[in-house]
Amino acid sequence: MVSAHASRLATLRHASSTRVDATLAALFDARPAVDERLEAAMRHGLLVGGKRLRPLLVYLAGQALGASDDALDAPAAAIELIHAYSLIHDDLPAMDDDDLRRGQPTVHKAFDEATAILAGDALQALAFEVLASRPHPRLGQLVTTLAVASGRDGMVAGQALDLAAVGGHPDAEAMAHMHAHKTGALIVAAVRLGGLVAVEEDDPRLAALIRYARAIGLAFQIHDDILDVTGDTATLGKISGADAARAKPTYPSLLGLAGAQRKANTLIDEAIAALAPLGEQAAPLADLAHYMIERDH
Amino acid sequence: MVSAHASRLATLRHASSTRVDATLAALFDARPAVDERLEAAMRHGLLVGGKRLRPLLVYLAGQALGASDDALDAPAAAIELIHAYSLIHDDLPAMDDDDLRRGQPTVHKAFDEATAILAGDALQALAFEVLASRPHPRLGQLVTTLAVASGRDGMVAGQALDLAAVGGHPDAEAMAHMHAHKTGALIVAAVRLGGLVAVEEDDPRLAALIRYARAIGLAFQIHDDILDVTGDTATLGKISGADAARAKPTYPSLLGLAGAQRKANTLIDEAIAALAPLGEQAAPLADLAHYMIERDH
Repeated sequence: MVSAHASRLATLRHASSTRVDATLAALFDARPAVDERLEAAMRHGLLVGGKRLRPLLVYLAGQALGASDDALDAPAAAIELIHAYSLIHDDLPAMDDDDLRRGQPTVHKAFDEATAILAGDALQALAFEVLASRPHPRLGQLVTTLAVASGRDGMVAGQALDLAAVGGHPDAEAMAHMHAHKTGALIVAAVRLGGLVAVEEDDPRLAALIRYARAIGLAFQIHDDILDVTGDTATLGKISGADAARAKPTYPSLLGLAGAQRKANTLIDEAIAALAPLGEQAAPLADLAHYMIERDH
Repeated sequence: MVSAHASRLATLRHASSTRVDATLAALFDARPAVDERLEAAMRHGLLVGGKRLRPLLVYLAGQALGASDDALDAPAAAIELIHAYSLIHDDLPAMDDDDLRRGQPTVHKAFDEATAILAGDALQALAFEVLASRPHPRLGQLVTTLAVASGRDGMVAGQALDLAAVGGHPDAEAMAHMHAHKTGALIVAAVRLGGLVAVEEDDPRLAALIRYARAIGLAFQIHDDILDVTGDTATLGKISGADAARAKPTYPSLLGLAGAQRKANTLIDEAIAALAPLGEQAAPLADLAHYMIERDH
């Protein structure tokens, strides 16, 4: 069953994925590979990375404020490159030690551990390369946004908090803090990049987009935890129940399944309310918010 | 015994290290740590990283073309952050598996493997953050320079080539190709960043700096290989003879010790010849070239 939100969103999702995949392919095609194996591992990581959710957020946020698709291609590709590198490193034996991602072997399984570390490193560099590849009056803010969201104040810090939490007993606040960094920071960065392409830093619509992104970011993570309990391995493309198996604290384990679902619904309501200042232009972002907690993988 | 080159260079080296260490410390002090352990690992990696050679190249190249020290602080810190992250990842068990660096435990020994992977990742992000922290008319070119030199066309590719070469029998050309990426790309990027702060991309003095950097980059690596044969563990701060122990091809193993020394000397002559268009302003760069193959660690 496809919801009205999902069906209205389908064309935009397809267009966004097509554009970002074309930008990414062009990056690899622009220059011959120095090391073929490294290159193949980078491409494998980008392929199994998945849903292209973050580029979609860049496009939808930018379009809502009047940016052209051409101007959004570079930040959309950049954020997907950061996401892809983070998955490769998260899957490593020293980290989450995952063998499968979306039904495919993870990069260190398909290649080897050293190549997976290097492929992640090179994808991160490529993110900043593509972001700077097109002149923009706010290029400094674009680079800062991506860098801060990726590093010690954002995604990497969240991953460190998450590793430290395994086997522990964090409360809901500590969990939200961790997720706000681990996955939230990059989701916020996606709308901020899209928005900054169109408007100045102090435009109030940018602040509205960021409130929206904070809410859907957390809802996304809660829904991920829920899928880990309710989903099956074939649909998820990864081992379901994996969180429980490694005694990883989750929202369902903290709030119960129904409580986690209520929390996700409330966040989506908050996200949609935050979009008010953007008017009709933000309708696709509202559809995306609904879709975030409807998806089954 | 301190040579005339080394003694003339000492003040500049000290000033450069002091400035870059202050810039790096300010980055950490600017915002509280989200994860203390991650942060401590990042700082440890920066501390054991070492000689601050790349920042010195940024300052000397920029000063030779008239840039102010203030304008060079950000690129100098950025390139050191990339260098530090690469050492942390290179030392990992899946890569070179080194326990010691400059007499200190490597990051994964002082902390753990997951933290070392994350600390490297966060240092790379921080490099781009600091580079973009100050407005510059050629910011796009600065970011592109650092990103291309770090990733699939530069340092990371070189590391991949190096891993693939272990146990193999590369010739001198293949070795030079590997080193041009693994260490050369970042050394070239250092002078290019310093130069770009001062002059436009098409200034012929920038091309001269790049020829200089290519030559000293390779000489630096040859000298490193020579030290691995001739140095002792206490002076090097790492296990001497480590390359031979892991059957890693080196210049001394390829050209003999005297042949490798001749090759390094020839490269330094080329580097100094390349500086001619820069005149007297480039005297410290000439001293640095000599110093590159005089150092004993």
